[in-house]
Amino acid sequence: MRRPRVGHIEFLNCLPIYWGLARSGALLDVELHRAPPDQLNHALVQGHLDIGPISLVEYLRHSEELLLLPDLGVTADGPVLSVNLSSKVPLAESGPNPTVALGSTSRTSVLLAKLLLEQRYGLAPVYHEAAPDIDTMIASADMAVLIGDEALKVHFGRGEDLNLSVLDLGAAWREWTALPMVFAVWAVRRDYAAANPGLVKGVLEAFLSSVELSRRELEQVAAHASRWEPFEAVNLVDYFHKLWIGLGERHLSGLREFAAQANRYFDVPPVAEGGPEFFAPT
Amino acid sequence: MRRPRVGHIEFLNCLPIYWGLARSGALLDVELHRAPPDQLNHALVQGHLDIGPISLVEYLRHSEELLLLPDLGVTADGPVLSVNLSSKVPLAESGPNPTVALGSTSRTSVLLAKLLLEQRYGLAPVYHEAAPDIDTMIASADMAVLIGDEALKVHFGRGEDLNLSVLDLGAAWREWTALPMVFAVWAVRRDYAAANPGLVKGVLEAFLSSVELSRRELEQVAAHASRWEPFEAVNLVDYFHKLWIGLGERHLSGLREFAAQANRYFDVPPVAEGGPEFFAPT
Repeated sequence: MRRPRVGHIEFLNCLPIYWGLARSGALLDVELHRAPPDQLNHALVQGHLDIGPISLVEYLRHSEELLLLPDLGVTADGPVLSVNLSSKVPLAESGPNPTVALGSTSRTSVLLAKLLLEQRYGLAPVYHEAAPDIDTMIASADMAVLIGDEALKVHFGRGEDLNLSVLDLGAAWREWTALPMVFAVWAVRRDYAAANPGLVKGVLEAFLSSVELSRRELEQVAAHASRWEPFEAVNLVDYFHKLWIGLGERHLSGLREFAAQANRYFDVPPVAEGGPEFFAPT
Repeated sequence: MRRPRVGHIEFLNCLPIYWGLARSGALLDVELHRAPPDQLNHALVQGHLDIGPISLVEYLRHSEELLLLPDLGVTADGPVLSVNLSSKVPLAESGPNPTVALGSTSRTSVLLAKLLLEQRYGLAPVYHEAAPDIDTMIASADMAVLIGDEALKVHFGRGEDLNLSVLDLGAAWREWTALPMVFAVWAVRRDYAAANPGLVKGVLEAFLSSVELSRRELEQVAAHASRWEPFEAVNLVDYFHKLWIGLGERHLSGLREFAAQANRYFDVPPVAEGGPEFFAPT
């Protein structure tokens, strides 16, 4: 029998998923593929992975082939710290057509930035893609969208050093909608789940145990990560409180709201009545 | 600080190295690259990996850039089960110029087969490379060299099914030299070890703990592997007793003997007096 092919994002935001897997022996029972989020999105949709994290927009576009894994998502009910928009002047003082450097190819984060800039703040920005480096981005644009570890650096000091206004896009989404933001979910391919329900259940249980262990050992997780990453443990504890691995009822409301908004920009099928659809372990 | 980039071979023979890593949390402190042996050899020599397993021939060719990790090697003091030569007739009955299909690009195993066929049995075979599938190999050649999981299948029944004579190359090497065979070693790049002795020591300790745990839990390792691989647990216990992860004095004598023999075929510098050179944790 083949081990399930499971994707893993090697960013800090997914460390709580890996923390327990690396200690429980669960990695012996999966073929783990570590890659940047874009590659994992593509691999899951193409069927080169059986299970993995997937950006919310990509999930919405391909939900007919996928089932969500319950209780798992990259979410924030307010500030997320690692997805932000930096600008030379506060948004309220921006001209109508700011230039915006997109330092991410994450469709969800880019769309979130666009929704806020265009729908909430009524701007008509001009976008261009850029390498994720705040100094060069802000030298060539009025605003910069960053995610992940580069965004955390802006949050934890670099934004202030450069005298930038930093808008946390998780916080801005909640101010706008009163809902949490769901940046990514974990999904299994429907064909794989139908053929291998026991294996999927095993992976799901390993994920959930890992997240639970990470919550209990949050200070250890942060201390460990600070050994390798350019962030202090105390800041990482703050981050792991805000960036929440989970998917409760409020998050699902946020997911549905985002899907409705995304419809303006992408050909996204609406979330079905009672949806999204989940893998149900038996 | 960057995590050490560590190679791992996803074959059964390296499961005893992974068994403990996957349960101790040690994987949190390395950037693990899993790939076939040839790719890992190349990556370590090119400096794309800091630490990893390397085929003995490749180590010998590049020993000036590498230090061995103590007590770690893929060895066998007699039968190895997973490196063999299958032939339609026993070697003693072979004509002088048998055709030999090489189902492996492992320089060490291929060289071991050549040494035995040419130096020990006095044959002058004609070699060609082939995909590692015993049925097609033996359909187009008098003999076939296989390693790894495909060789194990031949050992555990497929060879008998096809009415082949199967020569275990680990056993044949010991009959010839009275020494164990060292198929692969673990090495660290000298420049990396000089700059990061503490990190290398940490990885070495994690490896050695893992191997020790695997020895204590050998039946569990075998039972686990039999869930995913086409071999019965009882056969895998046998395999893990014969395929030994270690590198003692007798193995080093075997390594030096192989290096001396390899000199006839490759431009391999002789092992220096008192060598090979090891990483010495302080």
